[in-house]
Amino acid sequence: MRNFSVGVLGATGAVGQKFIRLLENHPWFTVTHVGASERSAGKKYVDATHWIESVPIDEKIANLTVAACDPAQFKDVDFIFSGLDSAVATDIEKAFAEAGIPVISNARNYRQFPSVPLLVPEVNPDHISLIKGQTFHPEGKGFIVTNPNCVCVPLVTAIRPIFNKYGIENIVMTSMQAISGAGYPGVPSLDITANVVPYIDGEEGKIATEPLKLLGKLQDGKVNPAKFQIQATATRVPVIEGHLLSVTASLKNQPDSIEALIQDWKNWKSPIADLNLPSAPKQPVKVYDDPRYPQPRVHAYAENGMQVGVGRIRKAEVMDISFTVLAHNTIRGAAGGAILNAELLINKGYIA
Amino acid sequence: MRNFSVGVLGATGAVGQKFIRLLENHPWFTVTHVGASERSAGKKYVDATHWIESVPIDEKIANLTVAACDPAQFKDVDFIFSGLDSAVATDIEKAFAEAGIPVISNARNYRQFPSVPLLVPEVNPDHISLIKGQTFHPEGKGFIVTNPNCVCVPLVTAIRPIFNKYGIENIVMTSMQAISGAGYPGVPSLDITANVVPYIDGEEGKIATEPLKLLGKLQDGKVNPAKFQIQATATRVPVIEGHLLSVTASLKNQPDSIEALIQDWKNWKSPIADLNLPSAPKQPVKVYDDPRYPQPRVHAYAENGMQVGVGRIRKAEVMDISFTVLAHNTIRGAAGGAILNAELLINKGYIA
Amino acid sequence: MRNFSVGVLGATGAVGQKFIRLLENHPWFTVTHVGASERSAGKKYVDATHWIESVPIDEKIANLTVAACDPAQFKDVDFIFSGLDSAVATDIEKAFAEAGIPVISNARNYRQFPSVPLLVPEVNPDHISLIKGQTFHPEGKGFIVTNPNCVCVPLVTAIRPIFNKYGIENIVMTSMQAISGAGYPGVPSLDITANVVPYIDGEEGKIATEPLKLLGKLQDGKVNPAKFQIQATATRVPVIEGHLLSVTASLKNQPDSIEALIQDWKNWKSPIADLNLPSAPKQPVKVYDDPRYPQPRVHAYAENGMQVGVGRIRKAEVMDISFTVLAHNTIRGAAGGAILNAELLINKGYIA
Amino acid sequence: MRNFSVGVLGATGAVGQKFIRLLENHPWFTVTHVGASERSAGKKYVDATHWIESVPIDEKIANLTVAACDPAQFKDVDFIFSGLDSAVATDIEKAFAEAGIPVISNARNYRQFPSVPLLVPEVNPDHISLIKGQTFHPEGKGFIVTNPNCVCVPLVTAIRPIFNKYGIENIVMTSMQAISGAGYPGVPSLDITANVVPYIDGEEGKIATEPLKLLGKLQDGKVNPAKFQIQATATRVPVIEGHLLSVTASLKNQPDSIEALIQDWKNWKSPIADLNLPSAPKQPVKVYDDPRYPQPRVHAYAENGMQVGVGRIRKAEVMDISFTVLAHNTIRGAAGGAILNAELLINKGYIA
Repeated sequence: MRNFSVGVLGATGAVGQKFIRLLENHPWFTVTHVGASERSAGKKYVDATHWIESVPIDEKIANLTVAACDPAQFKDVDFIFSGLDSAVATDIEKAFAEAGIPVISNARNYRQFPSVPLLVPEVNPDHISLIKGQTFHPEGKGFIVTNPNCVCVPLVTAIRPIFNKYGIENIVMTSMQAISGAGYPGVPSLDITANVVPYIDGEEGKIATEPLKLLGKLQDGKVNPAKFQIQATATRVPVIEGHLLSVTASLKNQPDSIEALIQDWKNWKSPIADLNLPSAPKQPVKVYDDPRYPQPRVHAYAENGMQVGVGRIRKAEVMDISFTVLAHNTIRGAAGGAILNAELLINKGYIA
Repeated sequence: MRNFSVGVLGATGAVGQKFIRLLENHPWFTVTHVGASERSAGKKYVDATHWIESVPIDEKIANLTVAACDPAQFKDVDFIFSGLDSAVATDIEKAFAEAGIPVISNARNYRQFPSVPLLVPEVNPDHISLIKGQTFHPEGKGFIVTNPNCVCVPLVTAIRPIFNKYGIENIVMTSMQAISGAGYPGVPSLDITANVVPYIDGEEGKIATEPLKLLGKLQDGKVNPAKFQIQATATRVPVIEGHLLSVTASLKNQPDSIEALIQDWKNWKSPIADLNLPSAPKQPVKVYDDPRYPQPRVHAYAENGMQVGVGRIRKAEVMDISFTVLAHNTIRGAAGGAILNAELLINKGYIA
Repeated sequence: MRNFSVGVLGATGAVGQKFIRLLENHPWFTVTHVGASERSAGKKYVDATHWIESVPIDEKIANLTVAACDPAQFKDVDFIFSGLDSAVATDIEKAFAEAGIPVISNARNYRQFPSVPLLVPEVNPDHISLIKGQTFHPEGKGFIVTNPNCVCVPLVTAIRPIFNKYGIENIVMTSMQAISGAGYPGVPSLDITANVVPYIDGEEGKIATEPLKLLGKLQDGKVNPAKFQIQATATRVPVIEGHLLSVTASLKNQPDSIEALIQDWKNWKSPIADLNLPSAPKQPVKVYDDPRYPQPRVHAYAENGMQVGVGRIRKAEVMDISFTVLAHNTIRGAAGGAILNAELLINKGYIA
Repeated sequence: MRNFSVGVLGATGAVGQKFIRLLENHPWFTVTHVGASERSAGKKYVDATHWIESVPIDEKIANLTVAACDPAQFKDVDFIFSGLDSAVATDIEKAFAEAGIPVISNARNYRQFPSVPLLVPEVNPDHISLIKGQTFHPEGKGFIVTNPNCVCVPLVTAIRPIFNKYGIENIVMTSMQAISGAGYPGVPSLDITANVVPYIDGEEGKIATEPLKLLGKLQDGKVNPAKFQIQATATRVPVIEGHLLSVTASLKNQPDSIEALIQDWKNWKSPIADLNLPSAPKQPVKVYDDPRYPQPRVHAYAENGMQVGVGRIRKAEVMDISFTVLAHNTIRGAAGGAILNAELLINKGYIA
């Protein structure tokens, strides 16, 4: 595999920093350009950034000069990762795509665009072909691919193993979300220390809609969204990393037994298992038998933060089944997911 | 009102300590006897107890001699509060009732006995008459009254205002429970710091059953339990006091609008509002309009820990409505609830 | 005692809110005016404020109209409490004093002015007479009184009982400070959850200097500062309320024994013990014998947050003695201390 | 290097688990035997252990049968690591040494024995020769080597770079220790959530004495202990891993300037830097320039938890200098330190 030169937009923010950290020793990708707001442009990255990762900045990155998020400044990159704030992502990402630079974005702005894949490689790798319908660039060299909200990633990945066989009729769920999901400075400590905040503005709307596109069927070059309802209550808990979901669902088809269902869950094979993508976990969904697991502080970093944990699978008194789900919100649910998307794009020839 | 002499059983434990603290300045009750295990019997209370409350022990109580939990040692009390461990409560509480001493118990052992009221004064004050069917004591002088599990109290109190008019068809809920609910030493800090434990052994069974008795109808001297299903996931969060519930429910009868439902919720009047019981909150159920509220650390102590908070009442995509509930788990959900039960028993003449 | 009409400046901030909460049921004071920045002026207080206290805003205050911090808007008040940010306090507090309105300030700006008392009533009540040297107002009607930094208050109050007899030669101390000391939004939860931040910008300089003025002798209308050195390390810990200090000190005169020293500590009588000031704790300094105490979460609210706790008094291998100190940082160490200052000013006739 | 077969005593406890986890991929050592109490003996390790590490037990270890801590059961090992509780370590460790099995112990029982090295490889590697004075085994095949208390390790490692040149006259320090230092179940969450406990039973005595042996001079086959005093206050804070120390010290010889002192600190070269021990950090002491660093949650895992961080080096008003120190308490301060001791013993030929 040749080495790819990549840029990171929104590089000084929390998501941008996570991109930079995760890419530090990436076997295929080298960060050569960092972009941020006009205010940071022209400074050295280390001077423009309030670094919040727990390992020091890679020295090569520290000394890069921050550029404004203008495609003209990023001519030499093979593609860019976008950790841009949604307030500015619409125009900037479009400009890069139009300039012929592929955009692998964590921002929400283009997630619901019909021709933009909302992509989790283990869930809907075939959606990648939506790209062909994009018209940003005359020769198709620039395009946009997005990854979902940090609650939607674990939710859809967790139900992927049983979705085809049993279907989903309805979901009622409560999320217990880590503080790192709010960025930096994010949640004031006075709000969350020894407390739970049972409301996250805007979150429940994303949870209700993104899974339907993710689990939709590709037909005639379009995604025909899945048809079920998700009633979510999103809460913030004093946990640093790892979103935990308590899920109850009704199924379209009933399993012979809960044991049979669990076995199907465990037997699932990821559609990208044989592609040897560097960031792909060996086991994307791990089913725990111990009812106390998975737990955020203990299991969020399983397989470098890329594994989704499922626990407490059991018959429900109301609806059909209940279970818990855990994933690392800023790795699997954000930057790590985007990097895996880039790896799939390369594997499938969309970036060459 | 005359002053009542009361005993506390299990007085050295976490619930027993909460009884003693809450009774310190009670206008009707004076703690004159404290009971605990043989190991503690004979010692001064202050020496037998690893005191965990944040205000010092009342000096009069500190100097009481701990007695064994034997009715012969409690002849002069008007009644006793039981904070006994369920491992020993069955025999001891029976012995007290047989000795003619009313038992106001927080233990779960007798909660499902047909003739034992499982009582929350604002929810089912009429169930108190079940006592008449008890045969512990030939003249009926000794009897047992219980209060529910610390999740069931906020759940049933929260839905009481709308239960008669709309009915409940089904409930799916997730609890986020405070560490104080596990007693002392209880949850190891290594398990819960910056973490969530998505499982509490034995808890979900109680949540599924106790509300049905509490919301049942008294008919021919028996409780005809309510008929609906509760699917609960009980989790432990790093919060000190206050259990928070995320509830989604289907109703038997649909409201005209969500606003009408909220108005009914706010307009509810407690059946004991006019009894002037000293521990009764002025407003047993408070409906919050701010979607961020109620929160455990901020609102658990509302009305001295006796008020139940309800927030985020909204239409649900699945089932009918969603809302959050909060109550102080060791006050409203345990010792404070038991004290209110005793006050109602006196008001209704069961203890004279 | 007649009722006093008071204004609160910086009323929408964290300290201002604490003033308003503590004054809600004050027997002498009624908040009639609230001042904040131009941005808030003209709004109702409830609309201008992100309220962070755990009890609802007093309704009368909620409906007050916020004024700009201009003395002309505060003509009818007897005096004002200032919770102003130090960035603006210098000019505004001076303007109020010049307008003849006494200023009881929590800001640091005037603490080191020779004629401004840096006042803790139990520590240096006689310093109040410094006011006579102030020239803000031709008739002396307007003046400024300040209270110390939230670490200095517990430190000087804790050593006051032994200072006269034994003297202090030197102090080495480490503070473990609560997050509420940084205001709101203050410390990001990502910085402090399950962590310690061993640095608080600007804090150690205040700790090194304010105690010397506080423990200084009043001579010829001036404070002759105490002469000793304080080497402090100020850290932030994930505690909500209550600053804990670990102190080691060398004494000018050695006690006969550590027991004798402890006895002197316990026997101390506050110089304002007989003044019946409503916010004065009965026992301003409590010496704990249990080596585990005092602890912030357990003891910060002792005597409504106005008591200073001292624990673990023991002989030191280096220097002479070691001990721990605790006080509620936003009550005793800020707003509550300022209110007590106002009460002393009234008692002594400076506000009539 | 040949592979060594090792046993772990106290293998089911918190320290024993950390040994097993750290040894999982060790290039020289393979755990072949696990020892615990009679109660666990005969069970599979996975069944005898309440596993608290965040990665699953190595499968090979999980299936080992737990043996009683009897040397006869450990005949095939090259040496053993002891994570035994101090209540039983005295007799068991002696029995192993007498049976000719080297004991690398984390227990405190033999730390102060004149012929037993209290060893930190970067601090006092020459002390290893004390072993020659041990008489446990006629041919000297069995012996005992210990590592220090988890606060003493970072303290002595931090001052090692400046000790020879400047000397230490006295130390005043406060520790802020992580909950993992108390083992499992250890500290109850009700005691430490949002709190500080300013007392750890027995800790300060170890802090006052162990550093003197560690920094002592080897003369005529004996350690001549360093002569200075350490006044410590040991506190527990709600941090998971990483003990933080706030240290103030007086020096025997004054540096030309604080900058010169810092430079000496940074220029120090570890005495084992060239030995290529697998667990040795490249940089055993890292000096941070940013005053906010090091912090426990952010830096405890630097160099796999084996690096000691030093921050805020500055001139002190009292005594001479102040600084902060951080190290991972269960890795550098316990199991990891013991493993490094074993590596040094092999390098120096004591285990062959």
